[in-house]
Amino acid sequence: MEKLTLYIGNKNYSSWSFRPWIAMTAAGIPFEEVLIPFDFPAGNPRFEDISPTARVPVLHHGDVRVWESLAIIEYVAELFPDKGIWPSAAADRAVARAVSMEMLSGFRALRGACPMNIRRPKRVIDLPAGVMDDVARIETIWRELRQKSGGPFLFGQFSGADAMFAPVVNRFDVYDLVRDEETLAYMNAVKAHPAWLKWQEAALQETWIVPEDEA
Amino acid sequence: MEKLTLYIGNKNYSSWSFRPWIAMTAAGIPFEEVLIPFDFPAGNPRFEDISPTARVPVLHHGDVRVWESLAIIEYVAELFPDKGIWPSAAADRAVARAVSMEMLSGFRALRGACPMNIRRPKRVIDLPAGVMDDVARIETIWRELRQKSGGPFLFGQFSGADAMFAPVVNRFDVYDLVRDEETLAYMNAVKAHPAWLKWQEAALQETWIVPEDEA
Ligand SMILES: N[C@@H](CCC(=O)N[C@@H](CS)C(=O)NCC(=O)O)C(=O)O
Ligand SMILES: N[C@@H](CCC(=O)N[C@@H](CS)C(=O)NCC(=O)O)C(=O)O
Repeated sequence: MEKLTLYIGNKNYSSWSFRPWIAMTAAGIPFEEVLIPFDFPAGNPRFEDISPTARVPVLHHGDVRVWESLAIIEYVAELFPDKGIWPSAAADRAVARAVSMEMLSGFRALRGACPMNIRRPKRVIDLPAGVMDDVARIETIWRELRQKSGGPFLFGQFSGADAMFAPVVNRFDVYDLVRDEETLAYMNAVKAHPAWLKWQEAALQETWIVPEDEA
Repeated sequence: MEKLTLYIGNKNYSSWSFRPWIAMTAAGIPFEEVLIPFDFPAGNPRFEDISPTARVPVLHHGDVRVWESLAIIEYVAELFPDKGIWPSAAADRAVARAVSMEMLSGFRALRGACPMNIRRPKRVIDLPAGVMDDVARIETIWRELRQKSGGPFLFGQFSGADAMFAPVVNRFDVYDLVRDEETLAYMNAVKAHPAWLKWQEAALQETWIVPEDEA
C-alpha cells in the first residue's frame, strides 16, 4: 500500500490535527507525520499547498487528499477495517458518529474560550456564557456512553469518538472545568493512553507561542 | 426490518432536517416522516423527548436513536449499501465526506446571514463580512467535483454530498448570491430533482413564520 502522510500543525495547539493523529496512532496505523508550524500573522501560506481548505490536518495517500479531521478518521477506518476505529455494532457506530459530529459542528463557546494548550499550567479563566452548557453536554455524553460500554473509553476500547474528544480532555484539565468523578476517571483513562503520552511529550518540547491561543 | 422514522422541523426553514430527508428520499429509502413545527420562544420543548440534543433531525430505528444530519446519512448508507448514498470509489467517498464535513462544521457566515427559506421571493440583502468567501469556497467545491465527475451532481449521481449542500442551493437562489453559469447549472440540476420538488411543494404549503429566519 502507498504510504500515508498526515500533515499537522503545532502539537501544543492544533486540536484538529490531534484528532486523526491520536486515532491513527492508538489504532497502530503506520503513517508519516509532517508538522508545519502555524504562521498566523502571515495566514499560514504553506497550508495552501497541501490542503484544499488551507487548513490542517490533511492526509495524503498517493494522489488522494483527505481533509477534515473526521473525514480522515473515516478514511483510515475504511482502509483498516480490522483496527476497530469505529465500534463494531451498527447502533454503537451510529452513536459514535453522532457524538463525533456534535464535536465537529458544535461546542463553539468552549472551543472559542478555551483553546487546546497542552503545556498550559492549570488555571481558571473567566468563562463567557455558554461554556458551562457545552461542558455539561459533553459530561453527559461521556457518562452515558461509559455507563453503557463499561469503559474505560466511550465504547470500551479507544475509538474514533475518543479521538474526537481528546482535545476536550486537555481543555477540561488546564482550565479546571470539571469536578465529577466519572468525568475525571474518563480523562485519566485518556491521559494514560500511550498515544496521548506520545503527543504530549512532543508538544511539551515545542517552543512556538501562538498568542491568540494563550487564554 | 424495523421501520425508520425521521423527525424533522418545518420544511420551509429546517435546513438540517432537509439534508437526511433529501438523501433518503432521493435514494428511495422507505421511511416515515414526523414533522414537529418549531416552537422557538418556548425553546422547542417537544424536541427533548425525541432527541438527545433536543434538535432535529433525528432518526428512530427500533431502539436506536441517530441524531446529527450527517450521522443519519452515514447510518442509512450502511443499512442500504446498494442505494449509492456515497460514491463507490474510496477516493471519491473520502472527498464526499470531506466536503460534507466542511458544510457541517463551517460556512457559518453564510448560514448566519442567509437562513434557508424555501418560500422566500428572490431578494438581495446586505451581506456581512465572510459571506462571499463562503460562497466562493462552495462554488469551487461544486465546480471541481462536477468537472471531475462530469455531473450533473457532485459525484455524477445524486449522493450524500449533494444532500448536505441542498439547503445552500436555496440560499444562493433566494438571496441572489451567484452568477457563474456552472454554479447555476448545478443548482438547476438539484432543483429539478424529484426529491427536491417534493420537499419544496410541502414547504410552500406551510404557513408557520419563524421571524429570526426571515432575513
Ligand atoms: N473542521 C476542520 C477544522 C480544521 C482547522 O480549523 N484547522 C486549524 C488548525 S487546528 C487551521 O488549520 N487553522 C489555520 C488557518 O485557519 O489558517 C477539521 O475538522 O479538520
Ligand atoms: N449539527 C446538527 C444541527 C441540528 C440543528 O441545529 N437543528 C435545528 C433545526 S435546523 C434545531 O433543531 N433547532 C432547534 C433548537 O436549537 O432549539 C445537525 O447536523 O443535525
